Amino acid sequence: MPVFVASAKAPVNIATLKYWGKRDTKLNLPTNSSISVTLSTDDLAAYTTATASPAYKDDSLVLNGIPEPIEQSARLSACLRELRALRAALEQADSSLPPLSSYHVHVFSKNNFPTAAGLASSAAGFAALVRAVANLFELPQSPEELSRIARQGSGSACRSLMGGFVGWEMGSKDDGSDSLAVQIAPKSHWPTIKAAILVISAQKKDISSTSGMQTTVKTSSLFQHRIQNVVPRRYEEMKNAILNHDFELFATLTMADSNQFHAVCLDSMPPIFYMNDASRQAIRAVEELNRAAGKTIAAYTFDAGPNCVIYYQQEDEQAVLGLLRTAVPDADKWTSTNASASLLHGYNTELLAGLDNAVTQVILTSIGDAPVSTEEHLDFPPVE
Amino acid sequence: MPVFVASAKAPVNIATLKYWGKRDTKLNLPTNSSISVTLSTDDLAAYTTATASPAYKDDSLVLNGIPEPIEQSARLSACLRELRALRAALEQADSSLPPLSSYHVHVFSKNNFPTAAGLASSAAGFAALVRAVANLFELPQSPEELSRIARQGSGSACRSLMGGFVGWEMGSKDDGSDSLAVQIAPKSHWPTIKAAILVISAQKKDISSTSGMQTTVKTSSLFQHRIQNVVPRRYEEMKNAILNHDFELFATLTMADSNQFHAVCLDSMPPIFYMNDASRQAIRAVEELNRAAGKTIAAYTFDAGPNCVIYYQQEDEQAVLGLLRTAVPDADKWTSTNASASLLHGYNTELLAGLDNAVTQVILTSIGDAPVSTEEHLDFPPVE
Repeated sequence: MPVFVASAKAPVNIATLKYWGKRDTKLNLPTNSSISVTLSTDDLAAYTTATASPAYKDDSLVLNGIPEPIEQSARLSACLRELRALRAALEQADSSLPPLSSYHVHVFSKNNFPTAAGLASSAAGFAALVRAVANLFELPQSPEELSRIARQGSGSACRSLMGGFVGWEMGSKDDGSDSLAVQIAPKSHWPTIKAAILVISAQKKDISSTSGMQTTVKTSSLFQHRIQNVVPRRYEEMKNAILNHDFELFATLTMADSNQFHAVCLDSMPPIFYMNDASRQAIRAVEELNRAAGKTIAAYTFDAGPNCVIYYQQEDEQAVLGLLRTAVPDADKWTSTNASASLLHGYNTELLAGLDNAVTQVILTSIGDAPVSTEEHLDFPPVE
Repeated sequence: MPVFVASAKAPVNIATLKYWGKRDTKLNLPTNSSISVTLSTDDLAAYTTATASPAYKDDSLVLNGIPEPIEQSARLSACLRELRALRAALEQADSSLPPLSSYHVHVFSKNNFPTAAGLASSAAGFAALVRAVANLFELPQSPEELSRIARQGSGSACRSLMGGFVGWEMGSKDDGSDSLAVQIAPKSHWPTIKAAILVISAQKKDISSTSGMQTTVKTSSLFQHRIQNVVPRRYEEMKNAILNHDFELFATLTMADSNQFHAVCLDSMPPIFYMNDASRQAIRAVEELNRAAGKTIAAYTFDAGPNCVIYYQQEDEQAVLGLLRTAVPDADKWTSTNASASLLHGYNTELLAGLDNAVTQVILTSIGDAPVSTEEHLDFPPVE
């Protein structure tokens, strides 16, 4: 019996204007637009192989080698349903095509980074899945159109369908057809954007982002003001900062929006905390870096966990890595060590005491491209 | 040469609806009204002795035995100027009165608790100072009128001029004449309100509240929404909860407002953090207490520092102290040990691990009365 196979590799994205709050939890429709930077798959990627065969008895999903109960995953089913509908339309127009839309699909997925580190693995995973199945089905749809499908798997996954700087426009329609990702600028527009990720150990993750954001939507009195009055303006400002290569403005808006996202979490009842004392220390360390540099050369941002992502430009790498190597001297924690680095003159290193204990890993990466097809398939069982 | 002397003892107050933001930094006019509970001077008090003599060459202030440079304290001068004006009016009406308004004044002040613990010592201190000098000058003004003067010393000091539940009405006039404290209800209205204070060690205090609040006023985009849309309604709700003895509503509003105050701090640029990991653990411990109790029996609140103040009612003291004794078993850290206590059935003690290390002191106290005059004067040097 035939087996059809296709594989894709998809990037992680880290938001600079945060997605927090759903107006429709089933369709993953957000309460506000958001912006992210797609990171290089050289450093952080989800790999997915999708296979289809008339021999398969059901859909299945194997994540990092462990079978997942697919019936329970309404998210995955929603993506497969939409992708099959697009394939069915192709088959209807061209009867010579194999009827893949009627086959069950097996999906194998893994990350090249630890899932537990809290690095938006579900966004990369669903983007890789949608890209792989779209390849398998030979769908002609654009990344924008596919992003609408990935969004139903994991909201922020829609932004991982494109490279560079990506906006997720919230849309206004009830069916979600206008809630999709658009590329603000490709990687080539500003290829010198880099990111350093400080993986910070958490005692225990606070509430999941899915339930956390709905707690905020329901209970925070500041949240409505954020989504109605702050984000729409900030979206345009950040977009223009990107288009104008205005790093200082981009960085300032990025930090302000990370802080505001955590502020509305704190304004929720019960209050939600994702940052811990080490996260706050990382903020102070970046503030001191910008002070010592005399301008804003680095921006911190935190997702729904304590990890600190620092965006900076290639030209400031020495200063940023100089700080980070002083803060986290243990070379074993670093994923790469190829850059020269020196601490800025006058930097107050007192602020760094104890940060080394809390940071378990430093990952250096950079702005990256959209998901790509790959011929390197993950292992999958043969079909008799 | 004659020396005139008067002394007073004044209480600490801990806000349940927070004062954060000045619309006039010179006059200490707030951006929003606030509410507090006055705590018993049996446990926390500022003692002040004020002396006046024609022999004095200047005004002076001795705080906890250490002379303060009075010329530098515009705050203190503002209070003395206003109090002298009121005295001068009395003297003008009755020429038999000694001309105290023309004498210099020496002020001696100390607290019965460590100033460094961050327990609103300046509020109690300025309230005691205004009360003592008002006594010295035999001023007939009401606590409301005196609160207007204390406000110019330290904003929240105005609320320490009264006992029980106190509101600070922000007022609207530019000269601040309508920005003063009013008693919402005396201690006798709800005498069973108790407070436990967990003194939590801070590595280093973040920005002072005086500069912190102006950073928030200038930079937080959520702040305007808080002061315009949230606080005015919350003030009325909290006032009614107090008048109706509705502890659950009072507690819920208190916790929400503490969280929102810290949320607008976090939404400031640079972000301001007063709570630390131990503070957040205290929040979780109180949440678990309310869950185990099946209703809201305790409310946490945090001022501009990591200390946790827990309000509860006498009838729930066993449950609250049961939790606190389990969390902080070291009896040396407790200011009193006279209550029986037992942990609520089903309480998840895992949440408490490590809290003992962070809490340096547990202070038990209760709702209290207004400042009082006292004949126990602090030592002051004789005048030749």
